[in-house]
Amino acid sequence: MLVNGKHYRTIWLKQPENRIVQIIDQRFLPWKFVVEDISSVERMCKAIKEMHLRGAGLIGAAGAYGIYLACLEAPKNKEFYRYVLEAAQKLKGTRPTAVNLSWAIEKQLEAINQASYVMDKLNASLHNALLIADQDVAMCKSIGAHGARVIEEIANQKGGKPVNILTHCNAGWLAFVDIGTATAPIYEAKKKGIPLHVYVSETRPRNQGASLTAWELENEGIPYTVIADNAAGHMMQRGMVDMVITGCDRCTKKGDVANKIGTYLKALAAKENNVPFYVAVPSSSIDWNIHDGIQEIPIEERSGDEVKFIYGNDESGGMRKVLLTPEKSKALNFGFDVTPATLITGLITERGVCRADEENLSRLFPER
Amino acid sequence: MLVNGKHYRTIWLKQPENRIVQIIDQRFLPWKFVVEDISSVERMCKAIKEMHLRGAGLIGAAGAYGIYLACLEAPKNKEFYRYVLEAAQKLKGTRPTAVNLSWAIEKQLEAINQASYVMDKLNASLHNALLIADQDVAMCKSIGAHGARVIEEIANQKGGKPVNILTHCNAGWLAFVDIGTATAPIYEAKKKGIPLHVYVSETRPRNQGASLTAWELENEGIPYTVIADNAAGHMMQRGMVDMVITGCDRCTKKGDVANKIGTYLKALAAKENNVPFYVAVPSSSIDWNIHDGIQEIPIEERSGDEVKFIYGNDESGGMRKVLLTPEKSKALNFGFDVTPATLITGLITERGVCRADEENLSRLFPER
Repeated sequence: MLVNGKHYRTIWLKQPENRIVQIIDQRFLPWKFVVEDISSVERMCKAIKEMHLRGAGLIGAAGAYGIYLACLEAPKNKEFYRYVLEAAQKLKGTRPTAVNLSWAIEKQLEAINQASYVMDKLNASLHNALLIADQDVAMCKSIGAHGARVIEEIANQKGGKPVNILTHCNAGWLAFVDIGTATAPIYEAKKKGIPLHVYVSETRPRNQGASLTAWELENEGIPYTVIADNAAGHMMQRGMVDMVITGCDRCTKKGDVANKIGTYLKALAAKENNVPFYVAVPSSSIDWNIHDGIQEIPIEERSGDEVKFIYGNDESGGMRKVLLTPEKSKALNFGFDVTPATLITGLITERGVCRADEENLSRLFPER
Repeated sequence: MLVNGKHYRTIWLKQPENRIVQIIDQRFLPWKFVVEDISSVERMCKAIKEMHLRGAGLIGAAGAYGIYLACLEAPKNKEFYRYVLEAAQKLKGTRPTAVNLSWAIEKQLEAINQASYVMDKLNASLHNALLIADQDVAMCKSIGAHGARVIEEIANQKGGKPVNILTHCNAGWLAFVDIGTATAPIYEAKKKGIPLHVYVSETRPRNQGASLTAWELENEGIPYTVIADNAAGHMMQRGMVDMVITGCDRCTKKGDVANKIGTYLKALAAKENNVPFYVAVPSSSIDWNIHDGIQEIPIEERSGDEVKFIYGNDESGGMRKVLLTPEKSKALNFGFDVTPATLITGLITERGVCRADEENLSRLFPER
């Protein structure tokens, strides 16, 4: 996607050496566009854990590039693989809920195992990291094409009036390597000339909607309006929302979806008010090993300080952290919640749109 | 209630002259305790509109004191009543959703009309303002007594473990003249020695939960934890919440409730997860003229800047406003939403607890 007229992905290798990973440090958005150099596994772990980057697909790609960095720094002898395995454990531990991270790391370990010599293993990890990133982009493009048809159907019923789409958090190109998942149908529909408008829910406590999705849509010239998370129910009750599209951090085989905290509340309101509720699900986010999302998906608990403090831009244009509660307040901070499949109208995957149940999801992915 | 060991109400007359109204300027809480002098109707309108004070009961009392200020500044001749009526219109226009404001102002106009001479009218407005404030306190005390019995029943089922109560926004003593409504049962239960813990939802965009309710509970020594609004659904799904108690800005005769934006989402999650959902409803918040809350309650739309900017305390201890979105973002800001009676377990009124329907509410208030 374009940033001030220049094309960017969210993660890439610094040219021409291919020894440093570069990312957009999203902590400074929407106010400052900062590119960070990541030259070690340790720094990659820090970047993932402290959310310099975030989002299902991007975390996966970062895990893959992290393994490549591990291969670079590993001793080039019989200790090589042990070093890489330890790095894999560290990387996996940075974000426990997102399934893409372990998925990408496992793909890397497979690729490394298939090569015989250490230098081949290193090369394999490089090529496989690039492949994972490219596959992520291709997957997002397909989701866009399938999702845009859903938007088009709703647009046809609205007779030329803009389709009002509510999204939560940022499942945009900043959450993937490019294009995004929840935003992909929006970008694709716009290309097709379908009139639309996006309600961006703020997404407390980290405000990824207000800061990242708003910034993306602004850059892409898509009309949007930021709302407080609390407003979503009222707006659906009053007929202001034609459809919801969210992203997905982990989807079970029966279609339960773990996504950013607050998604579940929006799904409940959508169900109550007959608003179609779609989840963009790249297959890398499907965990075929689990069935019941509420019972089986571990929900990451993050520091309460993310609730107590917020970052914003002050009058002088500097980023500033302010405290929102009494100093001594305790705060609890869950990163995700689980939306049961029964609340979901459809899953938008790279292979098409399906109902959120095991039968239909398996039909799209018969190899599972 | 106590602030640093000294008893305060939220609004009172400056002694001994009785010509200036004093309020706690809540915009500076929880960081700074500021008392503001209000010496004219114009300033009172500004204080209500810009939310130096807020909350159903307190807005009502402020309207009543505002009419008293109008009587003080009105010409003491045949123009007196016209001046007061104009002031009443201005005061009513400051917050369209809360029913207490017009209720208190109408009470004042009745009292003024019953007196014959201008100076008697002035005195009537003074005594009636004090009466309205005292009645507000008495009403909150009764709600506390009735609501505490509900908490006690749940405590009995929990066998000594603390009752986890979720509240939204601030329907505490800062929202009334004293004690509060949603908090009254909590304060009363604590007096009775019932173990409890309160989850305080932040309440974006103005954060009255994180700033005001947290501050109140901290001062009162009640264990509490602040959560993002988005977390309420997840926590109810996981059995972490035993009951919800919210306040009410306007209740229809069939028990639909307008309250702070976001209440509706919490009610949906409570219904879905069988968590008892109670609304503390002082009779001054019941609008017997309307039936269907979704159709008939006007929802105040406030400036989008309340979503885009947030106030907090910076490292130096100063209050600072920071921007959360791209500078050019549009934002939409609804102050309230409507929770249909069907989602409500019970209404806690000053005359007892009842089911949220016309039959039961009318039985408690047969004079209507």
